[in-house]
Amino acid sequence: MASAPPLHSVSSGQIRLPREQSLVPVGMATILPEAARYVRHLESQLLAHVFRWGYDEIILPTFEYLDVLAPGLESKLIENCYKIVDRATGRILLLRPDVTAQIARTVAMGMMGTGLPLRLSYRAPVFRYEPEHAGRDREILQVGVELIGPDDAAADCEILTMLIECLQNIGLRNFKVSLGHVGFFKGLLIRAGLSPEGQKRAEQAAARKDLPHLEEILREERVPQHSARSILAALELCGHADVLTKGRKLAGTEKPLLQALDRLTTVYRLLCSTGFQDVLVLDLGEFRGFDYYDGIVFDVFTEGIGAELGGGGRYDHLIGRFGRSIPSTGFALNIERLFRGLNLSGTPALRQSEVFVAAPSTATEQLMTIAAELRQAGLRVVQHVLSGPVKHLVDTATEQGLARGADVIVVLGTDQAEHGRVVMLQSDPRVGTPETTSRPRLSQSFVSQSELVTRLRRKSGGSEGQT
Amino acid sequence: MASAPPLHSVSSGQIRLPREQSLVPVGMATILPEAARYVRHLESQLLAHVFRWGYDEIILPTFEYLDVLAPGLESKLIENCYKIVDRATGRILLLRPDVTAQIARTVAMGMMGTGLPLRLSYRAPVFRYEPEHAGRDREILQVGVELIGPDDAAADCEILTMLIECLQNIGLRNFKVSLGHVGFFKGLLIRAGLSPEGQKRAEQAAARKDLPHLEEILREERVPQHSARSILAALELCGHADVLTKGRKLAGTEKPLLQALDRLTTVYRLLCSTGFQDVLVLDLGEFRGFDYYDGIVFDVFTEGIGAELGGGGRYDHLIGRFGRSIPSTGFALNIERLFRGLNLSGTPALRQSEVFVAAPSTATEQLMTIAAELRQAGLRVVQHVLSGPVKHLVDTATEQGLARGADVIVVLGTDQAEHGRVVMLQSDPRVGTPETTSRPRLSQSFVSQSELVTRLRRKSGGSEGQT
Repeated sequence: MASAPPLHSVSSGQIRLPREQSLVPVGMATILPEAARYVRHLESQLLAHVFRWGYDEIILPTFEYLDVLAPGLESKLIENCYKIVDRATGRILLLRPDVTAQIARTVAMGMMGTGLPLRLSYRAPVFRYEPEHAGRDREILQVGVELIGPDDAAADCEILTMLIECLQNIGLRNFKVSLGHVGFFKGLLIRAGLSPEGQKRAEQAAARKDLPHLEEILREERVPQHSARSILAALELCGHADVLTKGRKLAGTEKPLLQALDRLTTVYRLLCSTGFQDVLVLDLGEFRGFDYYDGIVFDVFTEGIGAELGGGGRYDHLIGRFGRSIPSTGFALNIERLFRGLNLSGTPALRQSEVFVAAPSTATEQLMTIAAELRQAGLRVVQHVLSGPVKHLVDTATEQGLARGADVIVVLGTDQAEHGRVVMLQSDPRVGTPETTSRPRLSQSFVSQSELVTRLRRKSGGSEGQT
Repeated sequence: MASAPPLHSVSSGQIRLPREQSLVPVGMATILPEAARYVRHLESQLLAHVFRWGYDEIILPTFEYLDVLAPGLESKLIENCYKIVDRATGRILLLRPDVTAQIARTVAMGMMGTGLPLRLSYRAPVFRYEPEHAGRDREILQVGVELIGPDDAAADCEILTMLIECLQNIGLRNFKVSLGHVGFFKGLLIRAGLSPEGQKRAEQAAARKDLPHLEEILREERVPQHSARSILAALELCGHADVLTKGRKLAGTEKPLLQALDRLTTVYRLLCSTGFQDVLVLDLGEFRGFDYYDGIVFDVFTEGIGAELGGGGRYDHLIGRFGRSIPSTGFALNIERLFRGLNLSGTPALRQSEVFVAAPSTATEQLMTIAAELRQAGLRVVQHVLSGPVKHLVDTATEQGLARGADVIVVLGTDQAEHGRVVMLQSDPRVGTPETTSRPRLSQSFVSQSELVTRLRRKSGGSEGQT
């Protein structure tokens, strides 16, 4: 089995031209077939898994009106949106930078009816002007879910369990889910008496784990030294159950802080009881990039990928910004980063065996018939009309078939086979590839049309999908 | 079995607000879960079918630079594009209005290597400012294929056979593929001595089958009467094999016209020999909306849908506009129109049976365990924590389970069941739905946890997918 395609197949870096002459917009890579097969397979696996949990896919428009979606988006995110003036109305359209806000808008509008809870999934690209890197950073393929209605710890656990199962299911190894509660850190900041502006800046510094900057902000905000120490200590509280004990010490008797810790404790214990202890890392400084989170939050990391593969959390007040208050929680995964994470783990390539059937143009009708018959038998069949002299047919077919990586090559209408028989070539495992050439040695046989179908059906074993 | 969801589930017409106050951009509908399931199922079926023919999916960026893609697009189409000034470079970006041009650009750039033929498929939305209708007319979901390399009739047949098989495969009935060759009508116009400008206008009128306008253009261009008669007659040449004979009469000894008819005859005969005679309608006035087609062209129509469901054809010179001349052919299908076409044919709804498992919050851990076990047995399981007094648990669970349309409802932690046993409710086919209420009568039993898994696994028969 070959290993997964190299990273550069999903990177715009393939086109080695200076940016001034770039032929493809930066951050908007073409995903070539071998990588695309993985990407679609990943998306399908993830959606199939959450489907088992009762989540149904919704397809949202690529555009939204800025004025309609704005309540759900941070001003920083709005700045980073792709915007278009709508020709028909003169209003500003934006390409969705985030699906959660779109779903919140859809639910608040009553498009999903009034029954709760709602379990929704999606696969969609989101669009953001991001700093220039290699990769598909400005058109980000996401798969995600939202659980809308319940506000209990069981709902938090549902989302986290699905997330972890999804990642295990696709074969990701060595990943960690860092789990926190925004209420804890926010609570510390409020208790320390930060201004709303200072609080926001401190949260952003915390999200980046930028301790020096956070210290600076706390100094500017004249936070008393013992409070500042608690805040800085909280940001470094990462690990297992002992983090909760240490958190309680920092919390003292402050109710909002204790409530946050209580919820975090319940969720953590439930998840540990399901056997996820090794995957989880408690992080009391955990923050996500979006300001709509207001409860349990989490991020997924894996070795070798310097950014989170995805994450999510509870956003009980987001839908309310669109006029209908409903608690909710969810996660989103970045497909390209998952792909890269899996790639590094050495996942085998997805491939289905293939039959290459070739004929001269005089035998087009026979070619179409045989190829159709083989497809009906469950095989993947590429049909091809060859030009050139009949005596070179087999050579030309072999060359083209091998170039495609076909497992079996069938040639019709040659002068080597008796009437009605076809030439069948396949790699002979007993012989192997000769050392002097990279071309595999093929065994050649002459078979009748009906024999061909029987043999190949047996060979494929009627199985589908990857080999 | 329920029938397919009604049309309005994919239409933006759901939001009954005047356009001035519209919350969602016109022509960009949200596709709600029931319809989305169909849409994704359709896409998967189509892509799986062309995969069998050796076509591999490519994922292209949503944006392109206007100056790069422009050679592949008609000026009218460029006018109808969504455009953005790229913040980073100041260049104009456009949202792809067409995937074929994008693939041509990708292939010409050498991103797919130099080996031919290439067999590519895609699923992607295309974006165009279109006149305002109901439906998703400005963000159009497409699935399509391109066969790049061969210029022979067998390649035309491959594309057309795949197209027809795809449509049959998804269950579309009463559809027709109108088949023509742009070379024939173009040849008539050239022979009649039209100016290039007049020729273009005449082609556009022909594409719309606008005879009065075509007559006017021919008068303005001072086309001799016998030539004008031939042109107008050609536009009405629709039907079966006799169309080819009549076409030959109009062609006389004009070589380009005869060559077009020869190719059309070969392709038509090959397809008829495969048994597609009833599906095909020859149309010598057939034109597609894109000026890059230069050979065999076709459109798909079905009863009740006033526009084509898709189409395609040969575009031997499109890739050359991007600097590397390679003959090609392909088709694209409009998923929303297919969905509507299928809907009218009364296709059954896609649904998988579902188990709804409910528990009080005190039994969250048990709930998670049982639900996981049932999922491992291959069932779709929604888990839910109920609040409220224990004595109402079963009623609340029944209500919520039925609201979701669950087939089996399981309640844990009730006071009605002995320790370790759970309540299992399912519709009793012997009793049916009582006339006095729309709520189905349910049979209730008390089972142990292991018995539950065995019973439900047997019930589901281990089968997946639609019921």
